[in-house]
Order: sequence, then C-alpha cells, then structure tokens
Amino acid sequence: MKKIGIADTTFARFDMGKSAIDELKSNHTGFKIIRYTVPGVKDLPVACKKLFEEQNCDIAMALGMPGSKPIDKQCAHEASTGIIQVQILCNKHILEVFVHEDEGKDEKELFWLADQRSREHAINCLDLLFNPENLTREAGKGLREGFEDAGPLRM
Amino acid sequence: MKKIGIADTTFARFDMGKSAIDELKSNHTGFKIIRYTVPGVKDLPVACKKLFEEQNCDIAMALGMPGSKPIDKQCAHEASTGIIQVQILCNKHILEVFVHEDEGKDEKELFWLADQRSREHAINCLDLLFNPENLTREAGKGLREGFEDAGPLRM
Amino acid sequence: MKKIGIADTTFARFDMGKSAIDELKSNHTGFKIIRYTVPGVKDLPVACKKLFEEQNCDIAMALGMPGSKPIDKQCAHEASTGIIQVQILCNKHILEVFVHEDEGKDEKELFWLADQRSREHAINCLDLLFNPENLTREAGKGLREGFEDAGPLRM
Amino acid sequence: MKKIGIADTTFARFDMGKSAIDELKSNHTGFKIIRYTVPGVKDLPVACKKLFEEQNCDIAMALGMPGSKPIDKQCAHEASTGIIQVQILCNKHILEVFVHEDEGKDEKELFWLADQRSREHAINCLDLLFNPENLTREAGKGLREGFEDAGPLRM
Amino acid sequence: MKKIGIADTTFARFDMGKSAIDELKSNHTGFKIIRYTVPGVKDLPVACKKLFEEQNCDIAMALGMPGSKPIDKQCAHEASTGIIQVQILCNKHILEVFVHEDEGKDEKELFWLADQRSREHAINCLDLLFNPENLTREAGKGLREGFEDAGPLRM
Repeated sequence: MKKIGIADTTFARFDMGKSAIDELKSNHTGFKIIRYTVPGVKDLPVACKKLFEEQNCDIAMALGMPGSKPIDKQCAHEASTGIIQVQILCNKHILEVFVHEDEGKDEKELFWLADQRSREHAINCLDLLFNPENLTREAGKGLREGFEDAGPLRM
Repeated sequence: MKKIGIADTTFARFDMGKSAIDELKSNHTGFKIIRYTVPGVKDLPVACKKLFEEQNCDIAMALGMPGSKPIDKQCAHEASTGIIQVQILCNKHILEVFVHEDEGKDEKELFWLADQRSREHAINCLDLLFNPENLTREAGKGLREGFEDAGPLRM
Repeated sequence: MKKIGIADTTFARFDMGKSAIDELKSNHTGFKIIRYTVPGVKDLPVACKKLFEEQNCDIAMALGMPGSKPIDKQCAHEASTGIIQVQILCNKHILEVFVHEDEGKDEKELFWLADQRSREHAINCLDLLFNPENLTREAGKGLREGFEDAGPLRM
Repeated sequence: MKKIGIADTTFARFDMGKSAIDELKSNHTGFKIIRYTVPGVKDLPVACKKLFEEQNCDIAMALGMPGSKPIDKQCAHEASTGIIQVQILCNKHILEVFVHEDEGKDEKELFWLADQRSREHAINCLDLLFNPENLTREAGKGLREGFEDAGPLRM
Repeated sequence: MKKIGIADTTFARFDMGKSAIDELKSNHTGFKIIRYTVPGVKDLPVACKKLFEEQNCDIAMALGMPGSKPIDKQCAHEASTGIIQVQILCNKHILEVFVHEDEGKDEKELFWLADQRSREHAINCLDLLFNPENLTREAGKGLREGFEDAGPLRM
C-alpha cells in the first residue's frame, strides 16, 4: 500500500495538514497517511527526509505558512531549497504548499487560501502518485493552486 | 536508442512541451521521448532526476513559465539551482527553458516567445546529444533562444 | 541514553546555550548534553555535523545571534542553508535558534528575547525527541518562539 | 600528459575559449586541451563535470559572458554556485572566467576585456596545474584579471 | 602532528596568510602549516577540500578580501556557501576570514583590519584544534574578530 507523508508546522496559523488529509481521503483510497508536525518551515526538509527514509513514504506534502517580513521570506527560501534537495536525493516528490501571510488581503482570505491551496495540492499529490497522465493532460493550461487559474495564453 | 526526457508544468500558460517535442521530431530521428508533467517549476528538478534514473533518459528539457511577482522569481531561482544539481549528480544535460511572464510586452508576444524558445532549445538539445561540434562552431557568437541573437561584439 | 548537542557561538551577545541547557534540564531527564562552542554562526553547520557523527547526538540546537548589517544577514542565510544540509545528510533535527540583533527595540528586549527563544526552542527540542505528538496537537496554531504567539487565523 | 578542459558558450559575444586556448598554448607545452561548448553559463557546471569524469581533465576553465539584466545576474549566480559544487565533488579546480556585459563602457572595451581576462586566467590555470608556487609568491598582491591590478594596500 | 591548511588569494590586497601564519607560530607549537594560494575567493572552497583530502590537514583557514561592488558581494556569498559545504563534507572546520574592501574607512584602516582579523581568527583556529574549552568559556560574550568586541548585552 502507498504511503503519503504530511509534514506541517506549529508556526502556521491554519491547520493545513488537516485540510490536505481531508481532501486526500475524500478523493482516493488505498493509501496510508503518516503525519509529522515540526515547529517551522525550515524543519520541513528533514521532516520529509525522515518520512521518506524512516517511514517509507512514497510522496510527501510539506505545508507551511511563512510570515510577511523579509526574514520570513528568507526562511521560506531556505526551506524550499532544502525541500528540493530532499526530493533530488530520494527521487520522490514533495508537494510544497506554502501560503505567505501577505498573500491574502485579510485574515479571512488567508484562511480560505490556506484551506483551498492545501486541498488543490492534495489532488496534485494523488495525481503524481496514482494518475500522472492527469497532469500531462493539463500541461500548459496555466493552472494555479488556491487563487483562480491564470489559464492558457491567448494568441 | 537515445531517450530524451521532456519535463513540463501545468502552471505554464503555454504547452511548451508540445512545441519542444514537435521541433525535436521535425529535426532528427532515432530517439524516444518520455514526457513527464508536474505542477510547477519547483517540481522540475526531481522530475528530471526521475527521468534520468528511472526512465534512463540521456538528456532532458525542463520547460516552465515562472510568474512575474518577486515570489515567482524566487521559485524560478530555486528550481534552477535544483536543475543544476541534478545535472551535476547525473552527469547529464538538462536544457532549462524558462519563459518569465514579464518577458513579453503582451500575451501575444509571450505566446510567440514560449513557442520559439522551446523550439530553439530543442535544437540545442539535439546538438548536445548528437552533434556537439555544431555548438563549438557557434562558440562566442552571441546566440539567444527566443528573441533575436545579440551577435558577436564588434571591436 | 539520548544525547542532545548544543552548538553556540562566542559572537552572540547572550549565553543562549546556557538558557537552552537550563530549560532542557528543568523539563526532562534521561538525556546527556554535549556542548560545543564555535566563533560564529557560519561555524555552526559543521559543529552540528560533528556533534551528530563524532559525538553521536540524536538532535541538536544551533544557537546564534547574527548582527544587523546586510553582511550579517547574508552570513545568517549561509549558516541556515548549511544547517538544513546537515539535517538532510544526517536525518536528524537541528533546532535553529537565531536572534537577529535588530529584532529587539533595545538591549534589554534583546536580552529577554535571546533567553526566551532559547528556552521555547528547548521545549521544541524535547518534544521532537521524546513527545512528537505534542507538536501535532499544536499544528496550525500560529505558535512563535520568543515573542507572543500569532495564534490561529480567524475566519 | 595533463589535460585541460575548456568549457564555453554560444551565448557569449566573444570567443573566449579561443583566447584561452591561444594563451595556454603560447605559454606552456605538455598538455592536451579538450574543448566543450554549451548554450549558456548554466550549462557550464555539468560541462565541467563531464570534462573531469568522462574526459579525465585535470583542471578546467569555464568561460561565459552573462548579460546585464537582473535575470542574467541570477543565472550567473546559479552557474557559479554549480561550478563551485563541481570543484568540491571532484577535488579539481575550475577557473571561472565570467565577463558581465555591463563591465565594459562600450562593445570595444568589452571585446578587449573578454580577451584579456580569458588570457590572464589561462595563466592562472597553468600556474595551478604546473607552478602553484607562482601564485603563493603573489599572495595578497591585489591582482586582477582583465582590468589593471588593484595592487597591495598602502599602510 | 596536526596540520593546519592556509588557503589565501592573489586577489587580496594584503598578505593575510602571512599574518595568520605568524600568529599561529607565535602562539603554539606542534603543528605543521600547508599554504595554498589561489586566484580569488571562489577558488577557496576547493583549495580547502584539497588541503583536507590531499594534504590531510586537520583544520583550515580561508583568507580573502572581496571587493566592494555588488558582484564582489555575490562572489563572497558563493565562496562562503562552498566553504560551508566543504566543512560539512569533511567534518572539519574552516575559519573563514573575509575582509570586505568597504569595511575600512580608508586603506590604512583596511590594512590594519586585514592583519588583525587574520590574527584573531588564527587564535580561534588554535582553540578549535587544541583548546575548544577556551571557546566555551567565551560563549555569548559578543566577541568580534578585527574591530573591538561588541560585548555581552546589558540587561
């Protein structure tokens, strides 16, 4: 049975892991979820590495909500770099689901965005694991996770 | 038979993979294409690694269209860094074909650019794989992919 | 018996290692502490690697206090990147506890912050090592180390 | 017999590889040159890795001419990071010879600079390979490649 | 007998290696010094790696003097990143001793700073190698190398 790792943080101001898990379970069966919560986004790379190598996960989602200050942006950059390295070392995908605190115009929109983006990336996660041809069919379509799709360019 | 990996994204607003594949097939024979579509540019490094190690590709193209916001620039930077790492680890080339959304003055030009750059890098891909001497002949000529060549410096 | 590595610096203007060790010992038993002090934050990555591989630590805390100039920010960024790499290579957590000199409005607040953040991350360290379920229970709660928690988003 | 790898690009607006090779041959004998031309600077890291591991080069020169836009600066940064990684992995030197398009006041000066810097780094390459004591003798002398030397600080 | 590697550059405008070696020899005995001079700071990471793996050094100092332009800052950043990677790969310390050309108000101060910082880091190098307890005793004391110590925070 396939295993999906869910790495999330106590720093985030929304329980993104819960949204992701709910969406995963609503759309597919035949997999097991291992959840691992760490303090902040910079702890996510090693969390995913451990989910892959100690828990034998086949894929992971790394969910976090970086703050809006320059130092927070830098932390997110460092976390992303590490998340890419882990994927390269393990030959496994990590869906990075970051919601930056300044992406929403208010707390209400941010709340919606954190839930929505987590759910849409959960679908990406399922597609990568079970139906990669779904993604190929959408290649170049200008899809976005959370806010509405940009759509394909008009000639 | 040689294998060429094509990694592209659903985030892109143009089907760059299709243009690349069309150009590859129009210019050479005797290779097989493996296409792998992922959500965004940050998923491309591991996609290429998997194309090399699980699909035995000899070379890959990584096609994406980063957005125009600062966070998009940062994502592109992280993706590029990962793409370089994968090449180093595998001793194989990845042609990075990124079109930034702010490179075109409007959607029409961006549409043209995404197609044209994908096609010109497809030729680079074929040259690296089958005719590296073609590139040596053009060393220092100020070539550009997409927009017109800068040309050699005038003394 | 578990081993906790404490890597700190002579550059820091507060003895963060001492606060961390005091908090660790006040909250749990059954572990050994190995302390390793280096000149600055850029020496912390290899210090942690040595704590893991030469001293067999199971987890580490990397405590430092970067200055407020642009070059200091860059040093902190380089140190953080290295700290993430070490975690990935060793499959072990490092709690990065950095207090930037411009985070406090005066020396007094900085003093308080350096102590408080070291102590709160010491608790995170104990949770990761002994009670990871404590962190999962706090997922998405907007926790902060040092200053007050941001709390969960209001819908 | 020693082997020197010359990695250059079709993006450059001057045939820097030719200048480097000419200077190498004018100053020393007893080595073989392997030239490898790639599209742009981001292809140089893997090109050098292949020169080391597939062609058994003992040292390499990586010559390129990044453009003047912010995105070009970022590409150069990514390329440099990769070039350093390859050196670390292979325990071999790569002389990075980059001329940024905005370093010259006009095309004529850029033309001169690209030739001159390539030649001066070719001498560094020969020194590292055959006469490292030449470099030690010049330690702290404020040498520059291309434009005139800064010279040692005056007390 | 312990071996200390001294990696320095011809780019620097002060013979920092000489100051470091003089200070090392004035304060301790029972070690051997291996000096290795390279063109610039970006050549220091592999120089240190070679000092560790080909010359069996136990520790190294990497001394350089980056220029004051943005591109020089970027080179220093790339060099620092590589120096941290080498330490992580080898489990050995490298004391990075960089003096930025804009750190001094004039050539005279820069001259003084380059000498002083090299000497103070030479003491750090000896402490890490022979007396690590000296550093622990100074933890959190706000030490600086070159300019005067910041000192501990006042409550």
